[in-house]
Amino acid sequence: MTLVRADVTLLNAHARMRAVDLIRKKRDSGEHSREEIDFLISGYTRGEIPDYQMSAWLMAAWIRGLNNAERTSLTEAMLYSGEVVDLSDLPGKKVDKHSTGGVGDKTSLILAPIVAAGGINVPMISGRGLGHTGGTLDKLESIPGFNTSLSLQEFRRVLKQCGMALIGQTAEIAPADKKIYALRDATSTVENIGLICASIMSKKLAEGIDALVLDVKTGSGAFMQREEDSVMLAEVMVDTAKRMGKKAVALITDMDQPLGKLAGHSSEVIESIEVLKGRGPKDLCDLSLELSAWMFYLGERTPSLDEGRRLAETMIASGQALEKFRQGITLQGGDPRVIDDYGVLPAASHKLDVTAATSGYLAATNCMEFGIALAMLGGGRETKEDKIDHGVGLEFHRRIGDRVEKAEPLVTIHYNSAAKLEEAKARIASAFTFSETKTAETKLIRRLVGV
Amino acid sequence: MTLVRADVTLLNAHARMRAVDLIRKKRDSGEHSREEIDFLISGYTRGEIPDYQMSAWLMAAWIRGLNNAERTSLTEAMLYSGEVVDLSDLPGKKVDKHSTGGVGDKTSLILAPIVAAGGINVPMISGRGLGHTGGTLDKLESIPGFNTSLSLQEFRRVLKQCGMALIGQTAEIAPADKKIYALRDATSTVENIGLICASIMSKKLAEGIDALVLDVKTGSGAFMQREEDSVMLAEVMVDTAKRMGKKAVALITDMDQPLGKLAGHSSEVIESIEVLKGRGPKDLCDLSLELSAWMFYLGERTPSLDEGRRLAETMIASGQALEKFRQGITLQGGDPRVIDDYGVLPAASHKLDVTAATSGYLAATNCMEFGIALAMLGGGRETKEDKIDHGVGLEFHRRIGDRVEKAEPLVTIHYNSAAKLEEAKARIASAFTFSETKTAETKLIRRLVGV
Repeated sequence: MTLVRADVTLLNAHARMRAVDLIRKKRDSGEHSREEIDFLISGYTRGEIPDYQMSAWLMAAWIRGLNNAERTSLTEAMLYSGEVVDLSDLPGKKVDKHSTGGVGDKTSLILAPIVAAGGINVPMISGRGLGHTGGTLDKLESIPGFNTSLSLQEFRRVLKQCGMALIGQTAEIAPADKKIYALRDATSTVENIGLICASIMSKKLAEGIDALVLDVKTGSGAFMQREEDSVMLAEVMVDTAKRMGKKAVALITDMDQPLGKLAGHSSEVIESIEVLKGRGPKDLCDLSLELSAWMFYLGERTPSLDEGRRLAETMIASGQALEKFRQGITLQGGDPRVIDDYGVLPAASHKLDVTAATSGYLAATNCMEFGIALAMLGGGRETKEDKIDHGVGLEFHRRIGDRVEKAEPLVTIHYNSAAKLEEAKARIASAFTFSETKTAETKLIRRLVGV
Repeated sequence: MTLVRADVTLLNAHARMRAVDLIRKKRDSGEHSREEIDFLISGYTRGEIPDYQMSAWLMAAWIRGLNNAERTSLTEAMLYSGEVVDLSDLPGKKVDKHSTGGVGDKTSLILAPIVAAGGINVPMISGRGLGHTGGTLDKLESIPGFNTSLSLQEFRRVLKQCGMALIGQTAEIAPADKKIYALRDATSTVENIGLICASIMSKKLAEGIDALVLDVKTGSGAFMQREEDSVMLAEVMVDTAKRMGKKAVALITDMDQPLGKLAGHSSEVIESIEVLKGRGPKDLCDLSLELSAWMFYLGERTPSLDEGRRLAETMIASGQALEKFRQGITLQGGDPRVIDDYGVLPAASHKLDVTAATSGYLAATNCMEFGIALAMLGGGRETKEDKIDHGVGLEFHRRIGDRVEKAEPLVTIHYNSAAKLEEAKARIASAFTFSETKTAETKLIRRLVGV
């Protein structure tokens, strides 16, 4: 006999499960069954289990951990707390990318048009920036008129018309995750691999995708700063995706310094368009091509990764990716003139250089400090209610391994309000470490997981 | 410079403490300062910190533990969340006893009159039964008219008039504990030594006492079944009391079988009066005398424990303790005729014997089962809202070490409703273990802590 969801609910009712007993079980390092996790998540989503019981369970789960089976059950319970978009009527494969976030990480804006131009559907449900990281939705919203709040029906229509659509989490998508995430944020139960995995994967799998490429950041500007933690998270996410019948791979990539030369909302839109025009900075171009290649390969558009890389290069060189971005912007209500005229984007009215206090080789950056400084200047949020100043940005002139002469500009701050300028400047200045001897460049792609 | 409470509050305001950071600290096994615990408890009591943050902190504290200093800070913060009764205008010492609870444990009803008759004030704030244990308040309420809900002002008046007063936790006493206890109950964060200690001691120290005698139960009918856990809890409570300038001692006493021969509300009132009349069962008399002796000794009424024991014996033999109980009942609105006529108490209308399935020596009992069976028959609560049937009771005919012949009655059930009678009977029957060889009696007082 196979149990379907309705049966499980019935069983729960008969067994008279109680949240208090499940909290005790996890507190005492017990392992939850699929039915138990389903009971907790569906009960919480429906409002039958109160916040205070869920937060006690989250803390127990944070400390005691969730094993592979529990994590998959949690992901699935959160996924099915809402609608799972069915894109099976849409011809072609559907592939998405998810990044764990960092400073200057704007690859979503680049990949989506490259991969859509190459014939793969990219149904992308993204998030907003919080803390030191930027969010894809916030960046797109610096384009006048761009609407990231499409209904699922509009999302489907845009996707059908141009092969790409970039929206925010709707009320229908994984409502359990939305509710649980807010609670985790308030109860210090965020940084746990099992909970992070379930949160990310429940949203991504709701997109109706066939495959997922994960970009797990590591280093001083990532949420997971140690490479082993990033690898563990990557393994767990790839495993969960595969358990749920999706193709998946994870790239562990560098976040010891910003990705590209620009951070900030308008700035990152500009830099993304520059990449699509074939003139972006090397690290950003390389990573965008690599991630696109994986999306083509997992989406079975190309028989090899190399051919995926070449297809991505062709999409840029031919201008097809740029035109795809223009089409996507237009369909989501944005001003398509941005492609040719960056002047339509909000800009900052003042500039200030942060200069090198000493000569030497740039050895390391405390990359998170750049994200925090940017947020302080208005280019990020400290609370979810804060408004973003899209024009504010940071321009990075040097990379790790570069020779730097005393007093030369390291970073140019583009700002509007001088309120926290000095503090931001000091943070940026103190984030650089120099060495007298030549230092090695950082490796952009550190490892592959799930191949 | 000495910090007073107002300064601490001011400091908190300046430092901008946040509950979310304190939750993270305990999650990561950090040690809280006095100010941090004060911030959490006062914020929660005032409703500024929501339930869901407190429950996450409680789970972190449950798992990571609280050290001696944290436990004392927590006790103090909970104590000062409400009113601390000032009894300094009342002549004489004030001494109380607290038991961690079990089956048939009615010593409060016996000690209070003995010790008050002997010249020590006994300001006793007690609890209700929950789960398998009985509560002092519930037992007293089987006496028609007995009012356990006195205001602090009435409490003080009764105490002044007769040297004893037995009431429930008022809204003024440790409101933080009341609020936190309800949350712990719903989030499986009850059984933690630091949290139990703070809960008990914050209420007991609010009574304005000079000394406290703790009766920490151990065995199959206690909350702490293993002796080492009981000893640890006892040590922690005695340490906390002493850190707060109170004399304290703890007796680790047997709960491997019921205390006395009767369990149930009316039944326990009757057995208590029997002890005061000099004809109670040996174990109950012995423990009552021992605890009374400690109260006299810590209250500096007698220069030695032996003299305390003799004074307690005298109070019973002279009838002074019995008269004191009559006075106390009268002052709290109860029907004093109960002393001479047990017929005024609610009784059960039916009896049923649970008989021995085999012959042998009684080797052990699963004592908690008796408490659960009693509750099932209406003589206890499964939820806080349940009403108690005061007439229901269990009468125990045999003790561990006794020779038992097959088919002889082991327990007589006094019941009103037959609804769960069979289940209760089966529980009681299965709670006895027999041995073919003579077994040892249990030791009533296992250890002393804090002497």
